[in-house]
Amino acid sequence: MIITSTLARIHLIAILIVMSTFAWASDPLPSWKDGQTKTRILQFVATVTDQNSEHFVPPAERIATFDNDGTLWSEQPVYTQLSFALDRVKTLAPQHPEWKSQQPFKAALENDMKTLSASGEKGLLELVMASHSGMSTDTFTTLVLEWFQQAQHPRFNRPYTETAYQPMLELLAYLRNNEFKTYIVSGGGIEFMRPISESLYGIPPEQVIGSSIKTRYEVKNGNPVLTRLGEIGFINDKAGKPVAINEHIGRRPIAAFGNSDGDQQMLEWTGASQGARLMMLVFHDDKEREYAYGPANGLPASSSGHFSQNLMDKAKKNNWTVISMKDDWKTVFPANN
Amino acid sequence: MIITSTLARIHLIAILIVMSTFAWASDPLPSWKDGQTKTRILQFVATVTDQNSEHFVPPAERIATFDNDGTLWSEQPVYTQLSFALDRVKTLAPQHPEWKSQQPFKAALENDMKTLSASGEKGLLELVMASHSGMSTDTFTTLVLEWFQQAQHPRFNRPYTETAYQPMLELLAYLRNNEFKTYIVSGGGIEFMRPISESLYGIPPEQVIGSSIKTRYEVKNGNPVLTRLGEIGFINDKAGKPVAINEHIGRRPIAAFGNSDGDQQMLEWTGASQGARLMMLVFHDDKEREYAYGPANGLPASSSGHFSQNLMDKAKKNNWTVISMKDDWKTVFPANN
Repeated sequence: MIITSTLARIHLIAILIVMSTFAWASDPLPSWKDGQTKTRILQFVATVTDQNSEHFVPPAERIATFDNDGTLWSEQPVYTQLSFALDRVKTLAPQHPEWKSQQPFKAALENDMKTLSASGEKGLLELVMASHSGMSTDTFTTLVLEWFQQAQHPRFNRPYTETAYQPMLELLAYLRNNEFKTYIVSGGGIEFMRPISESLYGIPPEQVIGSSIKTRYEVKNGNPVLTRLGEIGFINDKAGKPVAINEHIGRRPIAAFGNSDGDQQMLEWTGASQGARLMMLVFHDDKEREYAYGPANGLPASSSGHFSQNLMDKAKKNNWTVISMKDDWKTVFPANN
Repeated sequence: MIITSTLARIHLIAILIVMSTFAWASDPLPSWKDGQTKTRILQFVATVTDQNSEHFVPPAERIATFDNDGTLWSEQPVYTQLSFALDRVKTLAPQHPEWKSQQPFKAALENDMKTLSASGEKGLLELVMASHSGMSTDTFTTLVLEWFQQAQHPRFNRPYTETAYQPMLELLAYLRNNEFKTYIVSGGGIEFMRPISESLYGIPPEQVIGSSIKTRYEVKNGNPVLTRLGEIGFINDKAGKPVAINEHIGRRPIAAFGNSDGDQQMLEWTGASQGARLMMLVFHDDKEREYAYGPANGLPASSSGHFSQNLMDKAKKNNWTVISMKDDWKTVFPANN
């Protein structure tokens, strides 16, 4: 009995050793083409996890932050959250007959993106408030989950959750396997992303930071609820990102990933501390497989996402890596289920 | 060689088995007296971690939130953060000769707590802003750490970090050993607590939620900094606590611990979801070893901490446990180093 059990233990140990060797030997980033970009990621992780390196970082301080729209998933032809808002306005329209003649709702109901775009930030804000507030946080979560279950991306004909980028999903998992804590730091709504962040990205709700609208705690018929108010709480974009990172995490990231001018300050803040740091920008130059947009691409500015020439210059000056979707990624989206 | 190494492995396994058995057999809460309160904690943890229980909670959802002042450490004779503010005002006084004749600074410099208290919320806010803002977040962290290294509690003659309650330190560790994520949710300043939360409580900065003042991201001489502004960001008290829990964590706690009226809504919010829940209030009834205060104690209201008769009634009605410091705790503070 003792001998059998000892043999079983040795066998188990052998299996564990083989498994871990295999995990290290296999490519952790199979959807990334070999080249400078991939090498830079691998070298950075090797350095900060090497106890003998002067740039070793203890696991508790391995914070990596990711923008969401255009960095982890597609943001074209419009932000996914705007699609949600437009669909929700259509659902609510029967209760609001006045919307038929009132902008920006008229444009939303008629899919008139040109007029909608012309309504500017003020118009978009009206749409967001009409579609995102006036209910409890629990109800909003349910609405978001129901929408994701049925909505389809207009070009790729797949659920929006399947417009996440396969190489970035691999990168998230690779960092976590190396004891990084991965965070989303997005201009998108915090409560729009949280219901799907865990199943989609493996990122739990407490590691999602986003823009928010104010909530109020109230006891309704003896039942405590958080009611979503028609008032902006925080805009998590540009200089707001380091502010929110400090407020939510209280540590400075050692790696940051973005794709637009809204991410510049997050990358600056990440890069401005001592030690090995990794700052990367996803560049949308792949019209065939996804989209190509942005002035730095020699292409017109897009309503969602904005990679300016100024940002490209900053990236060069600061030695931030620009990820070419066309050249650095073998595949863009996960295989269809 | 092979035999030796196998024997070494078996030896290691044997040690690990003995260690884990010991850990489970020993009392995880040695500073808690046997009785209803301790039993309730142990039974709650046993229930939510039992995969065969209908009240099993997966580790990711095991969120426990703790108020800080009066719950995890002493808040008498004044809040620790107020002691910091008063010391800092004294340090800054030479640069502000006008404070000698200007309230609330005059009272602060003269240790005139009566006048200071009479200056009310407005006066305290002025003190906090003068002592907590106008520097970078990094500088503030340094000031806080330096202060904690030399400041002493006036009655207990020990560093403020050693006025943490030994039974609560054991409770935090016990919950974490059972795969809970422990959070501080305090009315105190988030950036005042974070520099010491990890070493003192084992709670990393990203699990500290508190009141905050606004910060602004700016690049000074090419160096990005977050500057602490003289403006309140968020007051994390009363109905603000569920709001902040939702914003920071995005999950509802299954256990919540407080000691004052400021914690009522956090406990309500925690208790208002389905399943086994643990809500507890530390009651300061131990004049000998710590303090006794609060109207529910038949004692005058205290400037810091406030356990009203109304809260005591709510606790009874909602079946929240009131922890008697006198009767439930064998020891109050950690043994002197």
